[in-house]
Amino acid sequence: MNEQQPFRPKARLPRGLRDRDEAELAAETRMLDIIARVYASYGFRALETPALEYTDALGKFLPDSDRPNEGVFSFKDDDGQWLSLRYDLTAPLARYVAENFQDLPKPFRRYQVGRVWRNEKPGPGRFREFTQFDADTVGSASPAADAELLMMFADTLDELGLKRGDYLVKVNNRKVLDGILESVSIEMSKRGTVLRAIDKLDRLGIEGVTALLGKGRKDESGDFTKGAELDTKQIARVTRFVTAEPEDALRDGLFSWWNRIAPEQGAGSIGWKGIQELDEIFRILTNSSYLDRVQLDSGIVRGLDYYTGAVFEAQLTFPVTNEDGETVVFGSVGGGGRYDDLIARFTGQSVPASGFSIGVSRLLSVLRARAGAEVWETQPLIVVLVLDKAAVAESFLLAKDLRAAGLRAEAYVGEAGMKAQLKYADRRGAAIAVIEGGDERARGEVTLKDLALGAELAKSTENRAAWVKARPAQQSAKRDQLVPAIRAMLKAKAG
Amino acid sequence: MNEQQPFRPKARLPRGLRDRDEAELAAETRMLDIIARVYASYGFRALETPALEYTDALGKFLPDSDRPNEGVFSFKDDDGQWLSLRYDLTAPLARYVAENFQDLPKPFRRYQVGRVWRNEKPGPGRFREFTQFDADTVGSASPAADAELLMMFADTLDELGLKRGDYLVKVNNRKVLDGILESVSIEMSKRGTVLRAIDKLDRLGIEGVTALLGKGRKDESGDFTKGAELDTKQIARVTRFVTAEPEDALRDGLFSWWNRIAPEQGAGSIGWKGIQELDEIFRILTNSSYLDRVQLDSGIVRGLDYYTGAVFEAQLTFPVTNEDGETVVFGSVGGGGRYDDLIARFTGQSVPASGFSIGVSRLLSVLRARAGAEVWETQPLIVVLVLDKAAVAESFLLAKDLRAAGLRAEAYVGEAGMKAQLKYADRRGAAIAVIEGGDERARGEVTLKDLALGAELAKSTENRAAWVKARPAQQSAKRDQLVPAIRAMLKAKAG
Repeated sequence: MNEQQPFRPKARLPRGLRDRDEAELAAETRMLDIIARVYASYGFRALETPALEYTDALGKFLPDSDRPNEGVFSFKDDDGQWLSLRYDLTAPLARYVAENFQDLPKPFRRYQVGRVWRNEKPGPGRFREFTQFDADTVGSASPAADAELLMMFADTLDELGLKRGDYLVKVNNRKVLDGILESVSIEMSKRGTVLRAIDKLDRLGIEGVTALLGKGRKDESGDFTKGAELDTKQIARVTRFVTAEPEDALRDGLFSWWNRIAPEQGAGSIGWKGIQELDEIFRILTNSSYLDRVQLDSGIVRGLDYYTGAVFEAQLTFPVTNEDGETVVFGSVGGGGRYDDLIARFTGQSVPASGFSIGVSRLLSVLRARAGAEVWETQPLIVVLVLDKAAVAESFLLAKDLRAAGLRAEAYVGEAGMKAQLKYADRRGAAIAVIEGGDERARGEVTLKDLALGAELAKSTENRAAWVKARPAQQSAKRDQLVPAIRAMLKAKAG
Repeated sequence: MNEQQPFRPKARLPRGLRDRDEAELAAETRMLDIIARVYASYGFRALETPALEYTDALGKFLPDSDRPNEGVFSFKDDDGQWLSLRYDLTAPLARYVAENFQDLPKPFRRYQVGRVWRNEKPGPGRFREFTQFDADTVGSASPAADAELLMMFADTLDELGLKRGDYLVKVNNRKVLDGILESVSIEMSKRGTVLRAIDKLDRLGIEGVTALLGKGRKDESGDFTKGAELDTKQIARVTRFVTAEPEDALRDGLFSWWNRIAPEQGAGSIGWKGIQELDEIFRILTNSSYLDRVQLDSGIVRGLDYYTGAVFEAQLTFPVTNEDGETVVFGSVGGGGRYDDLIARFTGQSVPASGFSIGVSRLLSVLRARAGAEVWETQPLIVVLVLDKAAVAESFLLAKDLRAAGLRAEAYVGEAGMKAQLKYADRRGAAIAVIEGGDERARGEVTLKDLALGAELAKSTENRAAWVKARPAQQSAKRDQLVPAIRAMLKAKAG
């Protein structure tokens, strides 16, 4: 027995976390670059706050009021102060704005992309570390700031390669909904329950929402959710509002639409104020021709309590085939709205703000599923084999020449023989192997081997057999014609 | 007295952390893109591991053996397991390779960029969160893998805009140094002390190193560092080696150079093995014409104990003016080497590996200081003012047209008057303000105001006065000639 046997930890990912590979990272990087480019083109500036914040500054609670004081990774610093990993990018923005308020140009418009961490029970597709991409305007109560965000959101989805009609950015106003609640005397104490009920319209349909506005609803598993206990008239008014057709509202004009759906209300009410804000937003959107991409939808509420005005949500309109081959409607890829207590918890002073957040991995899945979305293209890899250890420097020079021509190329740097090198190239997903044996070198030639795997793996077996047959598996090329020969071969593979 | 007064946390950054602004982030993003592009062109693949790892898998110690079990942020997960924030990218790579060894193509070559965290005492320029950019080859003992990393390192510095002669990638081999120690019978127990002494050659000069190899050295503050207590002959042999001129070695051939500086040694020794490895590296570098950028330097040891073969370090050769206006020689911007126990702590199996790491903020400072480094260019901002709230939609359309032409443009979304809007544009660093009053709109014209601040802030006061005089502060343009007028104005400003 060996008492010196050292402790061997198990190599394993912590639960709820994951490693991400080349294909996903390349696509994500390209996607994030495009989003950042659009945001920067609107004059938003980049900001990066650290991953760690003082727990008291962060608030130590998620914005979802259902689960206060939960979901955050926290620990004590060596000076006894508590630190937390950020759970979103809005709480650090609040700290940043409060700390630097005097020095910032107002309105302050920033975007930030970064990882955030949630100390939650992991599940399928639910990770404890993920990426958010936020844009916020702080210090303007003007609906123009909301309109700008909506335009920017739509432009971003365009630039990512989604087609017109593939998505809609939907907008509503919480004040309008509050006006409806007020018009039929629904107590503010029931507001949260009503908001959460409406937020389930997509998933449960109008019957489900009606049940949740009334006595409550039993789901498939038999669990009962208590309702808001509104009376019949109240339920009718709320459901009439949330199912209103936006075309009617915009055709008739927002003000007359409002007078029709909330006849008890006059000018000056909270609802009327919301309609005025929506009107200003839609005047801007109409003038800049965004009505094919941004739409009024009175069923959009966004679940969080803290929104105070406009709320937005980008929805995809096409079905997506997921990794299990099932067809699903993806729904929301991002959203946000106007909120006014961003920095009040630090300063006591209310500062108007508006913003939206993109769920990066969700949007990336959409682009992956949507054929033709250009962010998923990858550059083919060329592997130069090393047949003769004494000639390794020659293989390196070949790879260098290919890179100098803009190709992606490596010389094999391991110590195995040719068969293992070809297997390596296959596993690496390479498109072409370049082979330069001693005889060939003497003749000034190289052999180019078309690797059937790699880029072609996606094709079906039958197609692949036909396709391999139609093309020679390998060919010779003059050493000084290497680059054009490889270009031609890549072109034939792609065609 | 108000007992209801809510708790108001102070808005403050945790110590040792910082917020980063637009200019730095834009430059860093461009820099990281260039590095990633070069690495990908060599066939390295991107990998991202999570920020959190199980503490036992991470090792919970920094690679610097001087401070075991220190410097890591750790906390307990809700299932009782300890998690830590990664302190570098090598320990997570070890976990990843050990966990996925069977499925990876070998050699496995990956790059990773990411934030790392150190629980250390913060100081000026020392932060507790920073970015590293690593490239590693796992599973090959071949010097060809080292040569590839050296070429890639040099190509990266080229692509970042550094000129030939501005930098040198220096290479040495730990085995050669071990051979020297062996040739004059220096005990392995003194190896660490000797390595650390040599590592200070740049800073202390040969006198300082000689003192540290002997009895020890008192620094300016009077602190005494105990030396390795070598004898005179041993010190002479070590210092002769570390100060050897690389030109001599390469001109005479590495093998005869070795026979001259270590005459007691024959073939088969550890030193001879190191010379063979260097020879193979330099055959590849010579054949691919890298000798003007990669150089042998027997004074390079890299401080960490764990290197077992080639060691590399990229050094800048030009002086840099730092933020305090002082001229400093920047020294190393990255380095690495060969190490063989990457995954042994998980599997017991030794796997050869080689890699290097770039200190991202350090390299970025260099590029900032080096005039002409293209990563620091930024796109000028155009702000469209809103003079008339009723015409805000028109201002938005102007900004939209500018963006459609590829310019960076925003319409003002705040609620202040014209004077405050101009101040906003100045603080935002904008190049041009576009003004469209009611009269101008009626005539189909806009006013373009050249904002002297912003891009010109860097110029001296005298130059600025002359420059402002030479150009009209504002001009009119036809609404339908807006884009060419702005382009001309930007060109005049840049010229």
